[in-house]
Amino acid sequence: MALIVEKYGGTSVGDIDRIKTVADKVIAAKKRGDDLVVVVSAMSGETNRLTSMAHEVSEVPPARELDVLLSTGEQVTIALLSMALNAKGCKARSCTGSQVHIRTDSVHGKARILDIDGARVRADLANDYVVVIAGFQGVDEEQNITTLGRGGSDTTAVAMASALQADECRIYTDVEGVYTADPRVVPEARLLRQITVEEMLELASSGTKVLQTRSVEFAGKYKVPLRVLSSFEEGPGTLITYEETSVEQPKISGIAYQTDEAKLTIRGVPDQPGVAYQILGPVSDAHINVDIIIQNVSADGTANVTFTVQKNDYAKSMEILNETAERLGAVEVIGDDNIAKVSVVGVGMRSHAGIASKMFKSLADEGINIQMISTSEIKISVIVENKYTELAVRALHHAFGLGKERAA
Amino acid sequence: MALIVEKYGGTSVGDIDRIKTVADKVIAAKKRGDDLVVVVSAMSGETNRLTSMAHEVSEVPPARELDVLLSTGEQVTIALLSMALNAKGCKARSCTGSQVHIRTDSVHGKARILDIDGARVRADLANDYVVVIAGFQGVDEEQNITTLGRGGSDTTAVAMASALQADECRIYTDVEGVYTADPRVVPEARLLRQITVEEMLELASSGTKVLQTRSVEFAGKYKVPLRVLSSFEEGPGTLITYEETSVEQPKISGIAYQTDEAKLTIRGVPDQPGVAYQILGPVSDAHINVDIIIQNVSADGTANVTFTVQKNDYAKSMEILNETAERLGAVEVIGDDNIAKVSVVGVGMRSHAGIASKMFKSLADEGINIQMISTSEIKISVIVENKYTELAVRALHHAFGLGKERAA
Repeated sequence: MALIVEKYGGTSVGDIDRIKTVADKVIAAKKRGDDLVVVVSAMSGETNRLTSMAHEVSEVPPARELDVLLSTGEQVTIALLSMALNAKGCKARSCTGSQVHIRTDSVHGKARILDIDGARVRADLANDYVVVIAGFQGVDEEQNITTLGRGGSDTTAVAMASALQADECRIYTDVEGVYTADPRVVPEARLLRQITVEEMLELASSGTKVLQTRSVEFAGKYKVPLRVLSSFEEGPGTLITYEETSVEQPKISGIAYQTDEAKLTIRGVPDQPGVAYQILGPVSDAHINVDIIIQNVSADGTANVTFTVQKNDYAKSMEILNETAERLGAVEVIGDDNIAKVSVVGVGMRSHAGIASKMFKSLADEGINIQMISTSEIKISVIVENKYTELAVRALHHAFGLGKERAA
Repeated sequence: MALIVEKYGGTSVGDIDRIKTVADKVIAAKKRGDDLVVVVSAMSGETNRLTSMAHEVSEVPPARELDVLLSTGEQVTIALLSMALNAKGCKARSCTGSQVHIRTDSVHGKARILDIDGARVRADLANDYVVVIAGFQGVDEEQNITTLGRGGSDTTAVAMASALQADECRIYTDVEGVYTADPRVVPEARLLRQITVEEMLELASSGTKVLQTRSVEFAGKYKVPLRVLSSFEEGPGTLITYEETSVEQPKISGIAYQTDEAKLTIRGVPDQPGVAYQILGPVSDAHINVDIIIQNVSADGTANVTFTVQKNDYAKSMEILNETAERLGAVEVIGDDNIAKVSVVGVGMRSHAGIASKMFKSLADEGINIQMISTSEIKISVIVENKYTELAVRALHHAFGLGKERAA
């Protein structure tokens, strides 16, 4: 008998009929003899409905109160799914983030999970209940309601699986798994049967929207067996693995892209130790995540720093950077939100040279100018003009031969 | 500086504009120098929307899960009102029932408040916050979400006022206060400037829908200064008083009616000690409230017992009573949900004879047959056929001269 944590997103529980379908799937899994914990998101559209009510009331709703409001979305879903399960003869109980003590820090809207008390869930499982848990939400030290931000329900599921030492965490979504590239952009993209956690992490942070970066990080840290699969189609999905990769491993597993970032540059900063911190410290203090950072020194001895942030943090970052520029006596601040990030990801990169040059050549052949480059051990990302996104992804998918069947 | 607990019902917070209006009223009160705690209900229509979703999922939704679902209604309102207050420059923080530790028993859908921890609210008040609290909800010993049932937000407000030893608890509603009779039935009905808690209690339990019985009981027990007033019209409303009544007190303060009850009779029960308990015990065990009870013995030595319950408990009560009848060897069970209860209420009744006979004569003069009679120290209620409701109320209002100005 295994303990399985399942997670269903907003589309999967988008209306009453779909909630009933999820109940059927949960019951089928339960009948296979497994213990089931089910994490759900708000019904699709609900978060938008609540957010627009908030903005009717207040231009800048206090983050604490926005969390109180938004967390009702998942609470509605857990109640309805538990009712559906009970109506179909399956014992089920719902739990809010507060009830399972999903303790987080106090950064409303972007909170991080600190720990989970699995005792209550274990007790319910021992009494043969399916436990239905509200994703996306937690409580801080003072019992204030917090939310985990975009894709937070994935994180809840993985954290829950880790706390309960579950045998598998299954993220049900509206795609069949992880592909070598976005199938809407590259028709010949292939479904990957498995992928290493490092690759998944790089893909997630590079714009493959299947799983949220934070949930993959969490899974990797605690080695939670994680599978992504479709809630609409039957199929094995993609398993995230933690084994050392074999030498047969192909060099590249996928091409990712992301169009929701913006680029900011501060030019002509007097170069001195600590300048990067002076520039990026205030951005980080405002809880804005910075992605790519580049710093170099001009011929005149001043430094230029360029970095990218999420588009919805662009205005705020610009404001902060302008204040910094004034304080440091910089020459100018330039912003550009018309960019895309395209990334090549694969663990094979570690042992195979020439990936970068192949990537750059392939883009040059298409006449695509590279604005920024960032590399990790298993990923190369470039920033290009937004309009080249699809062209770049297709060119790279073809150049690395990803359309062909992979041995593993 | 006084501490005021205000309560706004579903109609008062029925849409975004009304929520903003409530925010203005709260700010005006705050500017008079008072500390403010505001208890709110779900936006009108929201509870129905949630309930019908529940019934789409399940014919008989588990009570525990229904409470999880319904409690989101008030949570949405507290968030929106807190946002509205903050947007208008007034510091405000929301609290769910769980966050203020409104601890209740575990009777989902009809829970009773056991105690409230006022510490968190006091701390927020000390920091100059307006505290916005979700009405209608609490948590049991095991942190399960409970709801208090119909009108539960009134109870929350009164209980909060008691826990905080507030100077006044103001229930804002869609009527201007307590009248001598329902103004829709009796056009010359008068607004009462004050009323004793005993009278209010009898009026509330006799169908005057201004305040829920339980909230008045709570207020009476802890002598919470309670005022009912309109959230749409300016005016002093009606103050509930706890002073001993003077001899000048008029005999009768109002006529109440109620059409949401049903009557059940079990006939031909072998008469023996404990028969009432055997009949009513199972009804009470099902958490069904019984209102009027009459028992008498027939010429053949068997007992007949008649009692009334809320209409929505009628089917369930019938089922229980049929089982009881079989067990006890009763002759038959008869039900009737086409009834109304009409009551005459007044503390003056204690010292003035002849109220009952005046009441019965007045009804007889209109040709209205009385099916059951029940009396308390300050109230006489009769059960009549439903179609006579308005006629009976008008006849009694006139017979006791309630349209005339009262000295107090």
